[in-house]
Amino acid sequence: MGQLYRRLLEYSQSDYYPYHMPGHKRTPLTEVLGRVGDIDITEIEGFDNLHQAEGLLRELQEHAARVYGTEESFYLVGGSTAGILSGVSAALPRGGFLLMARNCHKAVYHSVYLNGLRPVYLFPEIYEPVDLCKGVSPARVEELLYENPQIGAVLIVSPTYEGVVSDIKAVAEVVHRSGIPLIVDEAHGAHLGFHPAWPQSACRQGADLVIQSLHKTLPSMTQTALLHVNGGLVDRKRLKRFLSIYQTSSPSYVFMAGMEEAITYMEQHGREAMEAFLKKWNAMLERLGECRVLRILPVDGQDMPHDIGKLVISVKGTDISGQQLYERLLKQYHLQMELAAGTYVLAMFTVADGQEAYDRLTQAVLEIDDSLYVQAAGKRKRPEAEEKQCRSDAPLCGESIRPERRLELWEAWDREKEVMCLEDSRGRLAGEFVNLYPPGIPVLVPGEVIGEGMIQLIDRSVKAGLPMQGVTCHEGRAYITVLR
Amino acid sequence: MGQLYRRLLEYSQSDYYPYHMPGHKRTPLTEVLGRVGDIDITEIEGFDNLHQAEGLLRELQEHAARVYGTEESFYLVGGSTAGILSGVSAALPRGGFLLMARNCHKAVYHSVYLNGLRPVYLFPEIYEPVDLCKGVSPARVEELLYENPQIGAVLIVSPTYEGVVSDIKAVAEVVHRSGIPLIVDEAHGAHLGFHPAWPQSACRQGADLVIQSLHKTLPSMTQTALLHVNGGLVDRKRLKRFLSIYQTSSPSYVFMAGMEEAITYMEQHGREAMEAFLKKWNAMLERLGECRVLRILPVDGQDMPHDIGKLVISVKGTDISGQQLYERLLKQYHLQMELAAGTYVLAMFTVADGQEAYDRLTQAVLEIDDSLYVQAAGKRKRPEAEEKQCRSDAPLCGESIRPERRLELWEAWDREKEVMCLEDSRGRLAGEFVNLYPPGIPVLVPGEVIGEGMIQLIDRSVKAGLPMQGVTCHEGRAYITVLR
Repeated sequence: MGQLYRRLLEYSQSDYYPYHMPGHKRTPLTEVLGRVGDIDITEIEGFDNLHQAEGLLRELQEHAARVYGTEESFYLVGGSTAGILSGVSAALPRGGFLLMARNCHKAVYHSVYLNGLRPVYLFPEIYEPVDLCKGVSPARVEELLYENPQIGAVLIVSPTYEGVVSDIKAVAEVVHRSGIPLIVDEAHGAHLGFHPAWPQSACRQGADLVIQSLHKTLPSMTQTALLHVNGGLVDRKRLKRFLSIYQTSSPSYVFMAGMEEAITYMEQHGREAMEAFLKKWNAMLERLGECRVLRILPVDGQDMPHDIGKLVISVKGTDISGQQLYERLLKQYHLQMELAAGTYVLAMFTVADGQEAYDRLTQAVLEIDDSLYVQAAGKRKRPEAEEKQCRSDAPLCGESIRPERRLELWEAWDREKEVMCLEDSRGRLAGEFVNLYPPGIPVLVPGEVIGEGMIQLIDRSVKAGLPMQGVTCHEGRAYITVLR
Repeated sequence: MGQLYRRLLEYSQSDYYPYHMPGHKRTPLTEVLGRVGDIDITEIEGFDNLHQAEGLLRELQEHAARVYGTEESFYLVGGSTAGILSGVSAALPRGGFLLMARNCHKAVYHSVYLNGLRPVYLFPEIYEPVDLCKGVSPARVEELLYENPQIGAVLIVSPTYEGVVSDIKAVAEVVHRSGIPLIVDEAHGAHLGFHPAWPQSACRQGADLVIQSLHKTLPSMTQTALLHVNGGLVDRKRLKRFLSIYQTSSPSYVFMAGMEEAITYMEQHGREAMEAFLKKWNAMLERLGECRVLRILPVDGQDMPHDIGKLVISVKGTDISGQQLYERLLKQYHLQMELAAGTYVLAMFTVADGQEAYDRLTQAVLEIDDSLYVQAAGKRKRPEAEEKQCRSDAPLCGESIRPERRLELWEAWDREKEVMCLEDSRGRLAGEFVNLYPPGIPVLVPGEVIGEGMIQLIDRSVKAGLPMQGVTCHEGRAYITVLR
């Protein structure tokens, strides 16, 4: 039992009467409050204040720092979003230059907008066989830093949503040579560092700020996250300022109690839990190796380090789309994937998955693979040459599509706009983000030119049934917002 | 049972297997997850997306709008803070002019900073007998709008933390005559509008944006809130943009399920629950009328409309401070107040309080009043003339203390700073906010001159043991951050 959880229980069972918020007074007037109302309090005597932590909450955050091997850690109740907004805002002055991977989460773009930053984009290479963004190349970071000496901070995402891991140590060395901080969006990597089979966490590889979602890969409630800090390249007072600006002044103690427990669980049981996880995972990969049509990632022998737990099932070169595979797994097998992309689906495993999780997915995938094999008349994976004609191409922001930027984000997003038919928008400037959601990565940013390739990509994605923010459909036609 | 809650339960009891976030997979690996893990999901098939609500979450938000009588409502998982940041950012262009009550929550000041706004402060008058900020005067709003025609939006708080209510209808009329929007921070008023004995909610009195904390006065979890919109003076697309910027992209479904239930509870049982609340409240006020030394607010016959549920117990003119009364209620009676201010404590009542809440506080207050009466040798409340010498004066930002502004907030807060002894800081410019916490209202804003009155006020507050952000104590001396 977590320390905070125990203290909350004790308080709820004491004879102290609450003449304070929250207004439910720990009374189960609703079913949700029946579950957690008794431990849902606000800042009162003895329970510290997250925005000026000096007691219990300070101890919990110090504990998180010890577990992750960082100098200082902050509990986030506004998800990784709050950590990214705060980290970027603290690391750069208004109008500063940020080197950022193009496949960053939309929260990074939002930070750019809020702070009037000038982004320099690093477009990750695409791993063509499965249409995934590769890790960030340290050499490319070095080049861009050399070409743009005004850059004041670097931000990359690793692991990516799909589990692709960058060489943080090498990137950090390059970045620190310029005397600027490296921010790593490790939202998908709070489980790293507890077992040697996994890639090391950015926390221990030289990153200055690391943002981790606790709920994504650890047993913690949705919307909980951590921000870790190392070194002196980011002003910590400024960082704390932004954390208290972007986060609510009434943080949830239920969240915080659960965060402490999740971190303590990993500290105490992480190694053995990850070991058991690894065994089930490896056994599944071995069985999935029998697939004759579908491609499975990660596999051995790739030049692309990959997280354990993110299973990418690629349909590239087959007769079905990612969305169709997703639907089939959902409707026929009752297996809810994390994501359907153009040419793959993504399944996510954590320490919380029992053997059933592995068995059901393995069986379903093998069955579907079998049916695809029969359908394709026994043809194994299509040769690379044919892949160009396949129905669904990569909707990711790769080397191939790099929209030209005419206006900075903050100039463009606030201007007058109009909605027009996608096919007529050639040459116009985007007025809104076009995001693939999930994971919420922009393919088009306000102020960028809508080119022919982009129109085709959006059109394909919409037709493939992929959820897109920023594009609407009406009577079979796609509409997009452009600047007047 | 709420619709969302039921759907979450059904999903958790179905045979659908989650290969998606959150990573706890609804497995009770920790005690907190044992409570709510099964209903804690993220955006998956059939559960909509808060940032682009088109299904279930849209229905819930439309339901909230119907209940509160507004045109559109948004669920907030980042508390009222998220609503204030979003509302202010949407209502004004960068660098715009905001007329704001000086007793606003710090989130309003943060909005000013983030958007480089130029605030015009409206200092509420002080109700001297108990050192409370009065409601905002419509005439004063009119004057300030006349004197500052550049003002693009008006923001006031009503009810205040202490329950003081402004005449929103009159203020809205004045503001709308200028063709600009009125934003009301109604964080403390989500319970208004369900019973005629209470003041009417700003939602039905002409406000354009209304922000309500659900957890403060209704049976809902901490960190949950609503943003209501009326009319066309604030661009709703822009508003939605900022809501999705400032809030996490992984909103908690446990929060949202609880929010729906809280709103539905008030819709279905609000009237009768408030009626029962009112009876207990009135009976308590009658008994507290016997106090001979302590003053109780609200009482009849004041010219200051007051919310029902916020009990202010004033020690002004007595021999003890607010902090001392607070400590006594806590240690001797195990009654946890909401707030200790310089000259009063605040107790909060809601529909969730049973008779015990009223009885225990009434008895304790009467006993303490009795002992104070004996101590003061039977002297009734001190005459006004003596009050100047009383130990603890109002630490609120009233008419008396209006620091001169030399630099705008965004210019000042980012500058080089140093920490110095409070008593030596006369004439320097503040480098950090000095907030009284709770409720987090700034008495000093970066860029303002530290005058003699301010030094005395801060000194008194620190000595009274009131929690102050922005001031540190070391070996009995107070230190403050100033601009270099």
